[in-house]
Amino acid sequence: MTEIQQICELLQSMGLSKQVVTHKKVETIELWSEALNSIKASNPSALDSVNFVLTKSLILKPKQPKNAEPIQVFVIAKADSAVSMGALGKELGLKELRFANDEVLTSVFNTSKGNVSPFALGNVPKEKIANVKVILDEALVSTQTEIAFHPCSSDHTVFINSKTLKQYLDSTIGESGYKVLDLSLISAAAPPPASSKPAAKSAEPKVQKKTEDVAGVTKLGLEVGKEEDFSRWYQQVLTRSDMLDYYDISGCYIIRPWAYHVWQTIQEFFDKKIKTLSVKNCYFPMFVSQRALEQEKDHIEGFAPEVAWVTRAGSSELDEPIAIRPTSETVMYPYFAKWIRSHRDLPLRLNQWCSVVRWEFKNPQPFLRTREFLWQEGHCAYIDKAGADSEARAILAFYKSVYEYLLAVPMIDGVKSEKEKFAGGLYTTTIEGYVPATGRGIQAATSHNLGQSFSKMFNVVVEDPNSPANANGDAAKLNVWQTSWGLSTRTIGVMVMVHGDDKGLVMPPRVSEIQVIIIPTGLTTKHTDKDRALVHNACLDLVSQLTKVDIRADADLRENYTPGFKYNHWELKGVPIRLEIGPKDLEKNSVLSVRRDTFAKASLPLENIEETIANLLETIQSDMLAKATRERDAGVRMVLSWDEFVPALNNKCLCYIPWCNTSECEDAIKERSSRAEVGDEPQDEKAPSMGAKSLCIPFNQPTNPPLVPGETKCIQCGNLATVYGLFGRSY
Amino acid sequence: MTEIQQICELLQSMGLSKQVVTHKKVETIELWSEALNSIKASNPSALDSVNFVLTKSLILKPKQPKNAEPIQVFVIAKADSAVSMGALGKELGLKELRFANDEVLTSVFNTSKGNVSPFALGNVPKEKIANVKVILDEALVSTQTEIAFHPCSSDHTVFINSKTLKQYLDSTIGESGYKVLDLSLISAAAPPPASSKPAAKSAEPKVQKKTEDVAGVTKLGLEVGKEEDFSRWYQQVLTRSDMLDYYDISGCYIIRPWAYHVWQTIQEFFDKKIKTLSVKNCYFPMFVSQRALEQEKDHIEGFAPEVAWVTRAGSSELDEPIAIRPTSETVMYPYFAKWIRSHRDLPLRLNQWCSVVRWEFKNPQPFLRTREFLWQEGHCAYIDKAGADSEARAILAFYKSVYEYLLAVPMIDGVKSEKEKFAGGLYTTTIEGYVPATGRGIQAATSHNLGQSFSKMFNVVVEDPNSPANANGDAAKLNVWQTSWGLSTRTIGVMVMVHGDDKGLVMPPRVSEIQVIIIPTGLTTKHTDKDRALVHNACLDLVSQLTKVDIRADADLRENYTPGFKYNHWELKGVPIRLEIGPKDLEKNSVLSVRRDTFAKASLPLENIEETIANLLETIQSDMLAKATRERDAGVRMVLSWDEFVPALNNKCLCYIPWCNTSECEDAIKERSSRAEVGDEPQDEKAPSMGAKSLCIPFNQPTNPPLVPGETKCIQCGNLATVYGLFGRSY
Repeated sequence: MTEIQQICELLQSMGLSKQVVTHKKVETIELWSEALNSIKASNPSALDSVNFVLTKSLILKPKQPKNAEPIQVFVIAKADSAVSMGALGKELGLKELRFANDEVLTSVFNTSKGNVSPFALGNVPKEKIANVKVILDEALVSTQTEIAFHPCSSDHTVFINSKTLKQYLDSTIGESGYKVLDLSLISAAAPPPASSKPAAKSAEPKVQKKTEDVAGVTKLGLEVGKEEDFSRWYQQVLTRSDMLDYYDISGCYIIRPWAYHVWQTIQEFFDKKIKTLSVKNCYFPMFVSQRALEQEKDHIEGFAPEVAWVTRAGSSELDEPIAIRPTSETVMYPYFAKWIRSHRDLPLRLNQWCSVVRWEFKNPQPFLRTREFLWQEGHCAYIDKAGADSEARAILAFYKSVYEYLLAVPMIDGVKSEKEKFAGGLYTTTIEGYVPATGRGIQAATSHNLGQSFSKMFNVVVEDPNSPANANGDAAKLNVWQTSWGLSTRTIGVMVMVHGDDKGLVMPPRVSEIQVIIIPTGLTTKHTDKDRALVHNACLDLVSQLTKVDIRADADLRENYTPGFKYNHWELKGVPIRLEIGPKDLEKNSVLSVRRDTFAKASLPLENIEETIANLLETIQSDMLAKATRERDAGVRMVLSWDEFVPALNNKCLCYIPWCNTSECEDAIKERSSRAEVGDEPQDEKAPSMGAKSLCIPFNQPTNPPLVPGETKCIQCGNLATVYGLFGRSY
Repeated sequence: MTEIQQICELLQSMGLSKQVVTHKKVETIELWSEALNSIKASNPSALDSVNFVLTKSLILKPKQPKNAEPIQVFVIAKADSAVSMGALGKELGLKELRFANDEVLTSVFNTSKGNVSPFALGNVPKEKIANVKVILDEALVSTQTEIAFHPCSSDHTVFINSKTLKQYLDSTIGESGYKVLDLSLISAAAPPPASSKPAAKSAEPKVQKKTEDVAGVTKLGLEVGKEEDFSRWYQQVLTRSDMLDYYDISGCYIIRPWAYHVWQTIQEFFDKKIKTLSVKNCYFPMFVSQRALEQEKDHIEGFAPEVAWVTRAGSSELDEPIAIRPTSETVMYPYFAKWIRSHRDLPLRLNQWCSVVRWEFKNPQPFLRTREFLWQEGHCAYIDKAGADSEARAILAFYKSVYEYLLAVPMIDGVKSEKEKFAGGLYTTTIEGYVPATGRGIQAATSHNLGQSFSKMFNVVVEDPNSPANANGDAAKLNVWQTSWGLSTRTIGVMVMVHGDDKGLVMPPRVSEIQVIIIPTGLTTKHTDKDRALVHNACLDLVSQLTKVDIRADADLRENYTPGFKYNHWELKGVPIRLEIGPKDLEKNSVLSVRRDTFAKASLPLENIEETIANLLETIQSDMLAKATRERDAGVRMVLSWDEFVPALNNKCLCYIPWCNTSECEDAIKERSSRAEVGDEPQDEKAPSMGAKSLCIPFNQPTNPPLVPGETKCIQCGNLATVYGLFGRSY
């Protein structure tokens, strides 16, 4: 509040006495516009200026050598001006511009995400101001209308004109402290996407020319393209489609209904599948005693640094700290030992749907790496290896169908290398996905044959029914064979990353809470209330017609939004089919359909519409899988020599390579593929230069060219290759 | 181990050199028998004695004045001898015998539950031995066969004869230290159930003559009757039916598949119901920051003493402790404030299925009071009171149908008194159940209209669409009206308490994972393998026939168990219908059905069996509800004067009373109804003398006699009664 007063005083001192308008906190341009329009509508006198342009202020940073003085780029732009970070970086001679993180916003500009405005420049310490490159959008210099800014937080707006803006900048950072640029020209001149160029040494983010930006159309929904800044796109697409919200505890997120519906669909699908294998659901406590948790030292070693400990209840310190399960092996297996009294109690097949907690200190990422996540974990015990083998594979096939059948995301199935398998288990089977936008692989789900190691640690034994008793009358003991397998809400993240586009989510019909959104159109002031009622009723009739045949349809009859606004809204949420109905459509007894995946439009006769739509949904579902499979196939290369390997990775590919299948060689591959790309910044997992890991040894080994035993060499070490391994950078 | 050696040495010193047989830990007589028989079968030479009787050793304690030296009763009995605690207490002149708790077992006898044997007498300190009344079952004195005991833990067995047993007792506690009793006589002479007597001053547990015990039939499954020791019966019925297991963290329990199926059925049923109200599912993090948790001081006051705090992750202390949600008001409502931007965002209706943690320090009880429990919590926001009102009632009706339609447990619905309502809310609606065995009421589920108090605390406001903007252009603000409502796994506990009997669970067909169990019978050594195969195939055919019409049927074809064993097994688990098929049934083309609820038997023609069974399941379901309703109705009395009130409570009744509906009077009722029964022990919630609480003000007010406004008086204070209140002792 004080700050706002200060800014008001500042403006007054500049000879201006502008009213600061108060409204709800607005997180998007669209909501800001709505808020101001609603004030304007209800009380015009509250706004001095009835015409205004909205703005955005962006703080960016380039890639720099480690010891360099940090530079920031501060862009003050018209809200609908496209800001291509690639092109802007080029213009300024700076590498790989990205959004600055919260720390920079706070420490340099004393502001925070969502609240940035030119007035934050007044907060920069003098010694740092030289390192802030300020870019002023030419569109704001040339405009005659008032310009809207948040003074210092997004629940206030102040209007100033172009002249005052320059006056403010001149007084704050000096005339030479900023540069006026025609952002639309820069954006239009941006280079074509990297994929059509030969692989660059450093994989520069692809930049797409977005015609709607250049044309000056206000961009509802997302502020960044998927190829432009993938990480920011991912966050925006999740939050703005109402899938997810950030939470006030880092690494924890709110799964909102639009995403939870996907999870519930997966649950129902998978739960039915496992019941055909006689797996039964149960629920074990989320708490583990320290003693139980630490019983299996090797296994827990990997989890120990991430375990959350409860040490206090109310105001009482607990006698012993109690852990929250990071996974349930040590929770469950002592009871397996108790419950399995005889071979006749086998197989024991349990599953639970629950959440687990792994207090990761790495960068959290919604759905992919979160401190609490939802999953199912299956834990089974068999009398022999064959039972555990076949179950592990059956479950993996179910996982694959969750991704391919429900989420339209293609998977490569295989077995993990010794290095990558579940610690303590016998072997791990896995399905691996591919995210084209980043060229990274992603482990989608795993199913382990644990062998007998856990049953030995937890003493899960039966008398061997096939072995005669010894002289003491004791039958031979047999340790049971165990499996464990898990699928988490990561599924949702993978789906979003693979299918989403610059307009927002693209939902596969099978998991979309709404499959068909019906929007009345073509109603103008010329139409009567009766016309309007006719169209609205037609929409509602269509909803009930479709709902009757189990198509999840809804109508958006909100009066206060334009059809265009609604199109954008439902495109952002990724609804597979939009149906538009207007008076003319009714005359023709037809409806206009628009596919979300391709934007293909078609006029559909209302006759037999249920069947038409049901078929169209099926088509969209299979087209989405086909498209994702084409992109995946294009992103997985056969690489037969080391020289091709790193360039292929840099070109966002996963690679099949002839491989000797040893851990030493695997380490060397990771090391060499990351060394090959020495950056000037400390490497983190996000950097494109991270090393390649083995993702799996695919069950379906490539055959072209065939791997010739005793002849084909490992591309890294030159020893004989025993398998084709799938390698790549990964999440 | 050392102890076992000591006992062996002891036996040797007595001139005996008995082998101690080792086997799996056995928790029930039935498993013990099985374990020994299996050793005998596989290796007869391992057992010196091929004939033996099994035993049980029970440690009991009477009700005693606070300062009295604690007395224990130690019963050494033949496994199949009935031990009526009521009768035994009478015989010994001791009040209200109950099982001694773990603390007594450890501190006095240095033993633990499941491992008690006469050898534990050797561990009693000399100064305490006089307070141990040892009862030796006459049946063990007169037997000629060897007697089996666990030496000191249930995974070992030692055999001694009657003479040696007496010899051991003589040497350990002296000849006068124990008393030989014919337990079967005592049991047979036990008084008839208390319910047929006039209400006793202190509600002594009812004692039932159990003919199967007197007749010497081995009691598979439960060791105590429901009326005999309700609390122990409840624990046994849950653990032995495989519904639940105890966990190594106090107050936490494992929900096993047999119980989880009930929960999942409830989930599916209720989830469908709330979706008809457009409630959407979501998931909020289980963690709450201290700041958020404590934002609503009044609300959190009730929860603060029970909140579990995470203070450490891996080996790092967290900067701030983080709470695990005890309920999600403070987790969710800050986001309600963010998401609800306009009245057009209303109603917002969210629900989540999750677990919550309340670290209660009171006696935990499976399903009823556990430190972590599963539930759903709904949280909705409306623009007006009417919306919140009608939703709260609609949800309450759903809850009622969960109990009545699915679980066959009748409910009384009403509104909570001011004293008992959800803190911070406007009013609480509730459904209340009744447990006949204890005569206590139980709150089954609640649905709150929170009014506007939370929306005021969390600033969940919209602009009032019906109020014009003021001079400043600000529309009038309106705090939303909220509801919250929850249903937990307590449901399962209530179902078990109401329907279970001395044979075990009685499952309502709609929630039983197996509705029909098919058991082959009548096969003797005279029958050929072909006969056997015919019967087995008939069982399997029947399973598939029933499964096809969605009846959950299974066949128990285990070779190594007798039909009798299987009957007991499935009765313990409460499967609604047992079908027996033998060669003779096949000849008659029929099958013998046995109902679990009534044990009624009927021969059913195999023709059209699907329909017959489907109808029978429906009949059982409605008969169970009818029976429970009759029992409930018999347990709810109309009480019109204070003098009748406490006797009615003591007679295990809930009471409708004319009431002035004030908190002061409610306090007085509790105080007077507990004072009326001053015991000689500190009172706890378990004691029958606990005070009566108001359970609800029923929506359906009794009409016979009608409450006459301005005339009928409150039975406690004598002021005018405004309502009939339902009062009772409760869980």
